[in-house]
Amino acid sequence: MTQALAEARTGMGRTSPNPPVGCVIVQDGEVVGRGAHPRAGEAHAEVFALREAGVRARSATAFVTLEPCSHHGRTPPCADALIAAGVRRVVVAALDPNPQVAGRGVARLRAAGVDVQVGVGEAEALRQQAGFRSLVVRGRPWVVFKYAMTLDGRVAACGEGNGRVSGAEARRRVMVWRNELDAVAVGRGTVALDDPALTTRDLPGGRHARPVVFDRSGRAPVTAQVVRPGGVLVTAPGVAAAPFEKRGMTVLHADTLPDALSGLGALNVASLLLEGGPTLAGAFLAAGLVDEVRTFIAPKLLGAGLSPLTGPSRPMALAQELRDVTTEVVGPDLLITGFLNDIPRLDAGGRN
Amino acid sequence: MTQALAEARTGMGRTSPNPPVGCVIVQDGEVVGRGAHPRAGEAHAEVFALREAGVRARSATAFVTLEPCSHHGRTPPCADALIAAGVRRVVVAALDPNPQVAGRGVARLRAAGVDVQVGVGEAEALRQQAGFRSLVVRGRPWVVFKYAMTLDGRVAACGEGNGRVSGAEARRRVMVWRNELDAVAVGRGTVALDDPALTTRDLPGGRHARPVVFDRSGRAPVTAQVVRPGGVLVTAPGVAAAPFEKRGMTVLHADTLPDALSGLGALNVASLLLEGGPTLAGAFLAAGLVDEVRTFIAPKLLGAGLSPLTGPSRPMALAQELRDVTTEVVGPDLLITGFLNDIPRLDAGGRN
Repeated sequence: MTQALAEARTGMGRTSPNPPVGCVIVQDGEVVGRGAHPRAGEAHAEVFALREAGVRARSATAFVTLEPCSHHGRTPPCADALIAAGVRRVVVAALDPNPQVAGRGVARLRAAGVDVQVGVGEAEALRQQAGFRSLVVRGRPWVVFKYAMTLDGRVAACGEGNGRVSGAEARRRVMVWRNELDAVAVGRGTVALDDPALTTRDLPGGRHARPVVFDRSGRAPVTAQVVRPGGVLVTAPGVAAAPFEKRGMTVLHADTLPDALSGLGALNVASLLLEGGPTLAGAFLAAGLVDEVRTFIAPKLLGAGLSPLTGPSRPMALAQELRDVTTEVVGPDLLITGFLNDIPRLDAGGRN
Repeated sequence: MTQALAEARTGMGRTSPNPPVGCVIVQDGEVVGRGAHPRAGEAHAEVFALREAGVRARSATAFVTLEPCSHHGRTPPCADALIAAGVRRVVVAALDPNPQVAGRGVARLRAAGVDVQVGVGEAEALRQQAGFRSLVVRGRPWVVFKYAMTLDGRVAACGEGNGRVSGAEARRRVMVWRNELDAVAVGRGTVALDDPALTTRDLPGGRHARPVVFDRSGRAPVTAQVVRPGGVLVTAPGVAAAPFEKRGMTVLHADTLPDALSGLGALNVASLLLEGGPTLAGAFLAAGLVDEVRTFIAPKLLGAGLSPLTGPSRPMALAQELRDVTTEVVGPDLLITGFLNDIPRLDAGGRN
């Protein structure tokens, strides 16, 4: 399953609204076929793997990171293809929460006498598929709030001439995330102050995530680097935004953050890397819309400066607690990750 | 040496202005004597260990966490005692930076034909002796800034009804530190707002560190829990502080933080746990007086509140970087430690 998950990872950030999926077919302990879903409209991972395996798929075991589909979408059902190829056993990392599948893929396989096991490598599969799962179940993107701060909780110094918080390794990791998530979000303040490009410029083979600019008043500078084709401007209803459209951006009129996220979902944005600033991030947090947190901590003290989040005050007992916390050393910095919301999943026992 | 360091640890917080020292004597692979320096005025660690070993010290190896003394202080020189007992080999963790010793203890042993090895377990020995070393070399206590914050860098919510940042395990660890350091420091704001006791109340056998209240104006409430016998009030020159003295506190008049620390050094305070608040900690940091940092991070987001440090603004490139950073999981929290200043040491090659 580890290899199937590695296959799936190659599709991350490219498959929406579909999930990234990987499939590996094993015959007598040997990998005879492998595949990944490259992008929406193209064949599913199982099809590529079966094609490579050919007749060696007969009596083989297929490892697939998501339940094989049971419905006729843009492609015929993968469950049927596995059965037709004579696969004896299918190991599935996670069930598909899509109401059109939702256990029916597994049921179809079992009805045909295929031995099916579910849940191997599920945690990692859920993480890879968080965007797809959020989109199909909640109709909005999975939101990952990312920031880098000093050990005294400062994301930037006061005033100009700011300098970087974290090291080169951490910045490279952020580019990997930009490559894997569908879109990156920033507020107007950050655009006006820093004019970030939010690209994967130092990542070989990276593709740029769609920039999403949250700007109620529509006054962000149109010459900013994030104002580019493929981008989205989220602004208040009634705000004229022709200059942004002229530069190839989609304009989304939304009155609230939940409305904005639904609108992004309708644009097939399944995952969103929230890159700040503090005001936008604080609004997301207060609305319960931060799903996952990835924090770099640089081991240094600044003594003054901006905090990562600026929002309404609440007592310490009502702080939002992260679950499944992980810690990793990344260059000179520390990376702490965790979840505020659960990735939508389907119990092996039944429906959502 | 690990056992000798464990012996030494039992004296931490009790020996100032002397260092905590441990000694273990090994004969044919068997521990035949062990000792720790219990407090100033009592015998040194080597004396206890030699006493226990008796004749079995002959031809034995002595492990000692600090260079044996060579001068007649309150007790006769330990180097002489080791030689007289017939010890063949002495393993020393760290040389003594005290100008009265500073390599002379080792030289005396070698001159008597004893085989001496220096530097085994030095890093841990330096940490245990940081207070003593600071006092004897710099004339001021070693300052450890300790705080607990949320993952968005908040040490407290705005306003009242605050609640705890970190878990029970972290709070217990803080009591261990209060037991091991000579004094705990707080600013007037923290005293007025939180009225902390700063004790080791949940630690069996713990002794309370001396509370040090930084209060330029002398307006801290005299009924506060930290206003107690053994405590120190640091206030501006000319401020009358009779009510504090009446309650058993020593009053230290100092115009600057360096002056205050020198005054504390004169009171035999070798190590100081700086417990906040943000204004006092910010002043220490800005003056370069934070030697060591111990930060608990609770994996939760608050969105608003107080930062751990409030001080003058500086560009990110001038942030103070921690060295020898360590990370440890403590209950649900993360503990990050590091150094801003070096613990004074003596090179094995020679003098300071």
